Amino acid sequence: MNEFDFIRNLREQTRSRKHSPRLVTGIGDDASLIAQTANRHLAVTTDLLVEGIDFHLDATPPGLLGQKALAVSLSDIAAMGARPFWSFVSFGLPAEVWKSDFKERFFAGYLELADRYGVTLAGGDVSRTKDGVVVDSIVLGDVAAGAAVLRSGAKPGDQIYVTGTLGGAAAGLKLIEMGARMGDSGLASLPQPGARGNSPTVRERSEARDLDAELEAIEAVLLRQLRPSARVGWGIVLGEERLATAMIDISDGLSSDLAHLSAESNVGALIQSAQIPIDKDVIRLCGRRALDPLALALHGGEDFELLFTVSADETARLPKRVDGVPVTHIGEVTDQPGSIRIAEKGRTWDLPAEGFEHFKDDLTRDPLK
Amino acid sequence: MNEFDFIRNLREQTRSRKHSPRLVTGIGDDASLIAQTANRHLAVTTDLLVEGIDFHLDATPPGLLGQKALAVSLSDIAAMGARPFWSFVSFGLPAEVWKSDFKERFFAGYLELADRYGVTLAGGDVSRTKDGVVVDSIVLGDVAAGAAVLRSGAKPGDQIYVTGTLGGAAAGLKLIEMGARMGDSGLASLPQPGARGNSPTVRERSEARDLDAELEAIEAVLLRQLRPSARVGWGIVLGEERLATAMIDISDGLSSDLAHLSAESNVGALIQSAQIPIDKDVIRLCGRRALDPLALALHGGEDFELLFTVSADETARLPKRVDGVPVTHIGEVTDQPGSIRIAEKGRTWDLPAEGFEHFKDDLTRDPLK
Repeated sequence: MNEFDFIRNLREQTRSRKHSPRLVTGIGDDASLIAQTANRHLAVTTDLLVEGIDFHLDATPPGLLGQKALAVSLSDIAAMGARPFWSFVSFGLPAEVWKSDFKERFFAGYLELADRYGVTLAGGDVSRTKDGVVVDSIVLGDVAAGAAVLRSGAKPGDQIYVTGTLGGAAAGLKLIEMGARMGDSGLASLPQPGARGNSPTVRERSEARDLDAELEAIEAVLLRQLRPSARVGWGIVLGEERLATAMIDISDGLSSDLAHLSAESNVGALIQSAQIPIDKDVIRLCGRRALDPLALALHGGEDFELLFTVSADETARLPKRVDGVPVTHIGEVTDQPGSIRIAEKGRTWDLPAEGFEHFKDDLTRDPLK
Repeated sequence: MNEFDFIRNLREQTRSRKHSPRLVTGIGDDASLIAQTANRHLAVTTDLLVEGIDFHLDATPPGLLGQKALAVSLSDIAAMGARPFWSFVSFGLPAEVWKSDFKERFFAGYLELADRYGVTLAGGDVSRTKDGVVVDSIVLGDVAAGAAVLRSGAKPGDQIYVTGTLGGAAAGLKLIEMGARMGDSGLASLPQPGARGNSPTVRERSEARDLDAELEAIEAVLLRQLRPSARVGWGIVLGEERLATAMIDISDGLSSDLAHLSAESNVGALIQSAQIPIDKDVIRLCGRRALDPLALALHGGEDFELLFTVSADETARLPKRVDGVPVTHIGEVTDQPGSIRIAEKGRTWDLPAEGFEHFKDDLTRDPLK
């Protein structure tokens, strides 16, 4: 049983119980919805980040981890079309990490991002662990009753969109596994250009320019992994303008999250390979590293872009950009439940859900690999 | 810096920031309060439980751990005078525990307790850990605006009360350290009486009766540790009836939690040693084990009783029992901030805050010892 089966099972158990009529949406979406008044709903999400599974401490500057911990939950609130307001952090640290400046740097990063979105850290808990850092990130948001965008609202004929670009976070993870390290203020452990002494030759200057561009691309994808952006503005627009029929954030990977959304909506999907907005830095970096940019974009996960569907007669209302982030049309919802297909050069294939799972049947794969 | 200094520091940082006017009470109380409407406030609490620190997996049946995880958060909601409604669980498990029936037994216990209090499990998260179980328990409750009971409302002359009895949970922990084990259906690893074959003599019968009583006491204190009760009914009554001026739940220990409440209220306290409601099973068990029942009651922690103050002219309105749980008058609030004293046989002493801390300055003490 993987975690999705387990969560489905738990959802059935909770649904069969008598519960508060004020619970609008429980287990099984990006966030839960609770009626505060007849007109306003509260959106609540929790995200557990575990050292060695969800991040490597030696590759993760504490300030960036603080930002990521908040961002992953902001992303869930955005995926409901809600506006984030309050947050909580449960924080477990081993004694030796407690004694360092980890917690101060973590919260400096966390609060910087919270300020950017007007989110108030309202509480939490602190515990010691035997070893390993654990962070549970909780965010509460607010949405007009009826405006929240569930995973379950997609209809055949709806058009499928994704914000921003894909593959960057997965490429960043690959580079971290290859030894790239980020400091609080930029790249820490790759050779720096221009440190060779003497005046450079024309050829050396050209090489240095290439290296600069390469390093810039490396830094960009490392930051996609270590400090993902949540599409808070897009979430609010899509909710308030009643534009999306269904939405999910891309945390496990496009292929898996599209499968989740389609399953909840009881529909299928057909996406166009050529339209997938692959991160340009990923394309630049993959060439000489024998990595497949499309595979990273389809299955990589952790991009925290929003994947959503729009009724065909509403697509003209969709803004081109929100907060500078573009949106891309990638396909269409079909009437074939369980069928997730991808088209390339006139042919179509089944797209298997190959995104991240914590508990694969065999578990031979380290989730960070 | 211990966790209380750190939390105080973080509270100062969050207070100095611009924040939502709807945040009524942030970091630093048993739960946070957010205005839902002009008349209703939302109470939110999170509690992180870490294997090896907050519980030993081999001594904790999963069903009881599920109940405890929920109970510790219900207790925080009760300590605000609020009524619990919704809950969330973030759940981290190593792969080998995931493959066992741990999660099913955990949630069977959890949902049984949730049903008892009309609480709906509304969401959460699942992650894998490298090793060790972690559970973050989040509960949301509801309270009339102005009815919530903070730690900060005690005034000199207010009378101090505690629900139920103290010391049981700490005694249970001592017995677990001595090797006592609880199964899902009672004591698992102490010798059972009456398994000696033949007809018992009069003396053997008397010994067996003593042993039965002793085993009953052992089971009772083990359950106080492994399956604490949250004083949900008391919390609701004290909030709705506007009876308490300040309140905290006893999680760290009476001495520490009384110090927290007094510090937040900027008052002192004088309690009467003879009035401390020590658990009768603790008194029975301590005699032959060289343990001090009063010390366990004062400093032991995890009893999850409510400690609260009542204005002297309101004490007559206080119910004797709620849900069968009595309340005991143990002392009085004084006008000497920082002074927590205990009186015994006409003399008074300073009562040091010797309850549980996750990050003691020296950390030589294992928190489970």
